[in-house]
Amino acid sequence: MKKKNGTTADDLDPTTKAFEGDYGEAFPNSQKIFLQGGLGVSVPMREIALSGGEPSIQVPDTSGPLSIDPQLGLPKMREDWIRKRSGVEETSISYQDSDPENSLEVPRPLLNKPLRSLHGPVTQLHYAKKGEITQEMEFVALRENMDPEFVRSEVAKGKAIIPANINHPELEPTIIGRAFQVKINANIGNSAVRSSIEEEVEKLKWATLWGSDTVMDLSTGKNIHQTRQWIIRNSAVPIGTVPIYQALEKVDGVPEELTWEIYRDTLIEQAEQGVDYFTVHAGVLLRFVPMTANRVTGIVSRGGAIMAKWCLAHHKESFLYTNFPEICEIMASYDVSFSLGDGLRPGSLADANDEAQFAELYTQGELTKIAWEHDVQVMCEGPGHVPMHMIKENMDKQLEWCHEAPFYTLGPLTTDIAPGYDHITSAIGAAQIGWYGTAMLCYVTPKEHLGLPNKEDVKAGVIAYKIAAHAADIAKNHPGAREWDDAISKARFDFRWEDQFNLSLDPVTARAFHDETLPADGAKVAHFCSMCGPKFCSMKITQDIRDYVGNKQKSSKLKIEKGLQEKSMEFRDSGSNIYVNVVDD
Amino acid sequence: MKKKNGTTADDLDPTTKAFEGDYGEAFPNSQKIFLQGGLGVSVPMREIALSGGEPSIQVPDTSGPLSIDPQLGLPKMREDWIRKRSGVEETSISYQDSDPENSLEVPRPLLNKPLRSLHGPVTQLHYAKKGEITQEMEFVALRENMDPEFVRSEVAKGKAIIPANINHPELEPTIIGRAFQVKINANIGNSAVRSSIEEEVEKLKWATLWGSDTVMDLSTGKNIHQTRQWIIRNSAVPIGTVPIYQALEKVDGVPEELTWEIYRDTLIEQAEQGVDYFTVHAGVLLRFVPMTANRVTGIVSRGGAIMAKWCLAHHKESFLYTNFPEICEIMASYDVSFSLGDGLRPGSLADANDEAQFAELYTQGELTKIAWEHDVQVMCEGPGHVPMHMIKENMDKQLEWCHEAPFYTLGPLTTDIAPGYDHITSAIGAAQIGWYGTAMLCYVTPKEHLGLPNKEDVKAGVIAYKIAAHAADIAKNHPGAREWDDAISKARFDFRWEDQFNLSLDPVTARAFHDETLPADGAKVAHFCSMCGPKFCSMKITQDIRDYVGNKQKSSKLKIEKGLQEKSMEFRDSGSNIYVNVVDD
Repeated sequence: MKKKNGTTADDLDPTTKAFEGDYGEAFPNSQKIFLQGGLGVSVPMREIALSGGEPSIQVPDTSGPLSIDPQLGLPKMREDWIRKRSGVEETSISYQDSDPENSLEVPRPLLNKPLRSLHGPVTQLHYAKKGEITQEMEFVALRENMDPEFVRSEVAKGKAIIPANINHPELEPTIIGRAFQVKINANIGNSAVRSSIEEEVEKLKWATLWGSDTVMDLSTGKNIHQTRQWIIRNSAVPIGTVPIYQALEKVDGVPEELTWEIYRDTLIEQAEQGVDYFTVHAGVLLRFVPMTANRVTGIVSRGGAIMAKWCLAHHKESFLYTNFPEICEIMASYDVSFSLGDGLRPGSLADANDEAQFAELYTQGELTKIAWEHDVQVMCEGPGHVPMHMIKENMDKQLEWCHEAPFYTLGPLTTDIAPGYDHITSAIGAAQIGWYGTAMLCYVTPKEHLGLPNKEDVKAGVIAYKIAAHAADIAKNHPGAREWDDAISKARFDFRWEDQFNLSLDPVTARAFHDETLPADGAKVAHFCSMCGPKFCSMKITQDIRDYVGNKQKSSKLKIEKGLQEKSMEFRDSGSNIYVNVVDD
Repeated sequence: MKKKNGTTADDLDPTTKAFEGDYGEAFPNSQKIFLQGGLGVSVPMREIALSGGEPSIQVPDTSGPLSIDPQLGLPKMREDWIRKRSGVEETSISYQDSDPENSLEVPRPLLNKPLRSLHGPVTQLHYAKKGEITQEMEFVALRENMDPEFVRSEVAKGKAIIPANINHPELEPTIIGRAFQVKINANIGNSAVRSSIEEEVEKLKWATLWGSDTVMDLSTGKNIHQTRQWIIRNSAVPIGTVPIYQALEKVDGVPEELTWEIYRDTLIEQAEQGVDYFTVHAGVLLRFVPMTANRVTGIVSRGGAIMAKWCLAHHKESFLYTNFPEICEIMASYDVSFSLGDGLRPGSLADANDEAQFAELYTQGELTKIAWEHDVQVMCEGPGHVPMHMIKENMDKQLEWCHEAPFYTLGPLTTDIAPGYDHITSAIGAAQIGWYGTAMLCYVTPKEHLGLPNKEDVKAGVIAYKIAAHAADIAKNHPGAREWDDAISKARFDFRWEDQFNLSLDPVTARAFHDETLPADGAKVAHFCSMCGPKFCSMKITQDIRDYVGNKQKSSKLKIEKGLQEKSMEFRDSGSNIYVNVVDD
C-alpha cells in the first residue's frame, strides 16, 4: 500500500519473474515489482496500474516466484544470508524413513542438505537481542514500510517474530506482531481419507496467490515427510506444522505409545527440512485434563487430545512440558519459532473462556519466558469458538500473561449454527480480535467441521481472512492501511469500472458479477451501473451537486469581485473619500 | 429457540399448512408448528426434530404460509383484528395509473379494498400508549417468548416498533427493537435494467424462507405499482419501500420536477396497498448538502441524492422536512412506520462519521419526536461504510440523539476493497453494531456495488446476516439465544451428523459439503469425520478421557467406600472407641 518506486521484474534474474499463469489471470493490470532495500534485499510487491491519470498502487504480494517447476523448487534467495552467518554448519540428514517401501520418492532437486548450529542459537531473536539487523529484518521492514531498527527492537522484545528456519532458504520473510500488518494463515495438508501431494502443493500456491502470509501443513496420512518436502521447497511463505501429528503416525496412531524420543527425532527431522514454526501443545498439563470432562465439546484440538490421552494413560506430566528446555535448544539451532498450541481451546460457544482454556493460556506465558531465555521466537495460539462479548478477554489475558508475545488465533467463530459458512462466522470474530491486537489469524474455510477444503474453499477462506485482517489494520489505524480503500472508493465514484475490478481483493469475481447484469463492454465505462439504471444514479447526481456547489462558489467569488469592483468605482466616484461607509450598501 | 408445546399445522385451516416444496427441501426433519397465544393468535415456529432422545428445538420461522398460488395471495390472518378496531373504514382506491397502456394487469384476487382511519391514528404506538395490548403485540410476544405487557411498554416508549399497515392483513407481525431478537431485512426490486415481477415474488419467498424478517421492495422500473401489489399480497413479513423512487418515476426521473403533491399522493397510494414502512429522507436538509461536496464518494443514497438535487435546484428546504407533520398524519391513518432514511450516509470508509452524516442523524432525532407526537412508529436508518473502530460512535449517538428509537443499519461495511464479498465485509460490521444495540440489519449481497442480486445472492446475503444477527443476540446475552448453538454443538460432539445438518442455518449446504468428502451413508453415523480420519479423532479421544475421568471418579468413590468399610471394621475391632483418630491412617 506504499507508493514508492521499485525496480520491476525485468531488471532481475529471470528465475524471479512471475507474470505467467494464474497471477496474470487473477490480477489483471497488476505486475510484480521489487523494492530494493539495504543489505541487498529485494522485496516483491504487487503494483496495480490505474487509469485516468491516477497513480498506481502497491499492495502486499505473497505469491512467491511463479512459473517455477514444482519438481525443481523455488530459488534459494536466503542461502547466502544464512551461510555467511557464523555458527551454521552443514550436517547429514538424520531422517530415517520408517516405511520406505510404501513411500513416494522425492525428486532429487527437492532434497536439501540440512544446516544446523552447533554453537548456540541462530535465531532472529538472538541477533535482534545482540543489536544486529539481519537481511530478514531489512526485508520485512521494506515489505511493511517500517524502520529496520524498529523491526529489530520489536523482535528483540519478543513482541514480533520472523519465522525463518535456516533450512528454508526459499523463504520471503514475513513478520508477525501487532505493530505490523495483521497476517493470515491457511491450513492445507492431506489426511488418511483423501488428497494427494500434488493437490497440496497446488493448494499452497493457490493460498499464497490470494494472499496467505503463512501456510500450515497439517498432513496426517501417508507420505507425510515427502509431502512436507515438496511443500517447503516450493514455498516462499513460512511453513508451520504440528509435529505431534507425524510422531503419532510413527506409533501407528496410538497416543499412549508416544515417547519423548520419537517426538524429539520428529522435531529434528522437520527442522532439517525447513519448517519455520512448530505448534507445540506443551501447555496441556496433566492437572488441566479433568477440567475438560464436563465441557459440551470436550477437547477439539487434535494435538491437545493426543497429549491429554497420553498424560492420563501414563498418569505423568506431559513430555512436552517436562522436556521443554530441550525442545527450545533444538529449535534455537535451526531458528524454528514456537507456536504454543492451545490444545484446550473451546470447540463451542458453551466452552469459551473456561477454566481449562485459561489454565493453558497462563501456562503458555510461563513457557514463553523459557523459550525467550533460549532465544527462541514465540507466538501463542488462541481460540476457537468464542461469542463476541467474550473475545476481548482473550486478547487482554494473552497480552498480560504471555508478556506481549504475538497472538495467533483460529477465528474465533462467533456462533456454532452455520456449518458451511464458518469462514463468515469466524471472519466476524477474527476481524475483532485482530483489531484488539492479534497478530495472525488462522483461516477457517466453508468446509470447517464438514470436510477437507478443496481449492475453491481455500480461496473462500483466504479472501474472508484478508478482509478480516485488512478491516483490523484499518481499525487499528495502521499507517497507510486505508490507502487501498480510498483508491477503490475513488475509482467507484469516478465510474472507473476496470480500476474498481483491478483494485478488488478478487478482481475476477468482481468483474464476473458485474458482467452478469451488464455484460456489454460499453457498460464498463458507463456513468451508471445496473443497480439504478441510466436515469437514476445517485453518484451522477452527486457529481451534479459538486458542479453546482463549485459553480456557486465560483459565481459567489465573481459576485464578490464584481461587488468589490462596483465599490471600488463608487469609492472613486465619491471622490475616494476613505471614510465613506461602503459596508452597508 | 423455545421448547414449548404448540399445535401442529394439522390442527389448523389447510390454507395455513406449509410443508410442501422448498420448505421441506431446505429444512429436512423440520416442521412448521403453531404456538397458541392469548387473543386467539397462532404463531408459526419451525420445530427441528432430533435423534438420540434429544428434545426437538424450535427456531424462528419467517417463511409464511407456503404452497399458496401467488396469483391468489396469502390468507388474511389479520383482517378480523383490524376491522374490529374502531375508526377503521373502507375507502375507494385513490391510485390512478399514469400509464395504463404500458402497465401489466394485476390478477383480481390480488387487488385489495383499502382501509384507512378517518378519525386519528390507528397505530400500534397509539394503542400501546393507551395501554391496549393488541393481537399484533400478543403475536410478537409469543414469537419472541416475551411478556405481552413488556412488548406493549417497549412500543409505547418508542423503543420498539411493530410495522403493520392496516392494509396488510396477510402479515405475521414482527417486532423491531433492541430488547428483542436482532432482525434482518432483504432488499429486492426490479430496476430499469432487468428483472420481472415473477422473479421478485420468488425472491421475496426465497428471502423469507431463509429467514429474512422484513423485505424492502426497491423497484425503480416500469410497473412499480403492480410489482408492489403482487409482493404485498404474497408477503407474511413487513414490506418496506422508498416512496420517493416511485414519485421520481412519475416525473420521468427528473428530481427538480418533484412536488410535494406528487410525493403525498404516492404515499397514500402505497399506504393503501399495504406497505408497512416507508423510508423517508426528511433529514437531508438544504444546509447539509454542501457538506458532502468534498467527500470521496459524495452522496450514495439514491433518496438522499434526489432530495439534495431538489433542494439545490429550488434553493428551498426539502419538502419532506417542511411537510413532515402532514406525512405523519397520513402514516398514522394506515399505521405505516417511519424508517427515517440516512440520505447522507457514507459510501466509503473515507466519509464515515463526517459532519454531513451526523448532521442528518441529529435531525432524525428531531423528526422522531414529531412522529411520536402523531403516534407514528419510527426507526432510524444508519450506515453504510464504517471502519470497526468508528462503529460504536454511530450507535451511541443514535441512542442519544434519536431518543432510543430502533436503529436500522446497512451493514456497515468495514472495508471497501472486496467487491464481490461485501456480504462478508458488512456482516463483520453488522454483527458488531447489532451487539451494540442495532435492532435490524439490512443485508448486503455479494453483488453489492456490482449488479442486481439473483436468487443465489439473496440467499448468500440472508445467511450472512442471520449469522450476524444471531452472533449479536448471543453477545447481548439475549435470553435463550445460545440454545440453538448448544444443541448443534452437542450434536457435533455426539457424532449425530444428521442432527448437525438439520440444525444448521442451511442444512442443504452443510450436508452437501460433508458428502463431498465422505459420501457414504455410513459416514453420517460414523464416529469420525473426514478432517482426521478413523484412527485420529480428537473428539473420540475426548470421549475416552470422559470415560477415564468417569471411571476414576467411580473407582475413587469405591475406594472411599471400601476405606470407610475398613475403618468401620477397625473401629468395631478396636472396641468402637469413638476417639480413635482414623483420619491419619
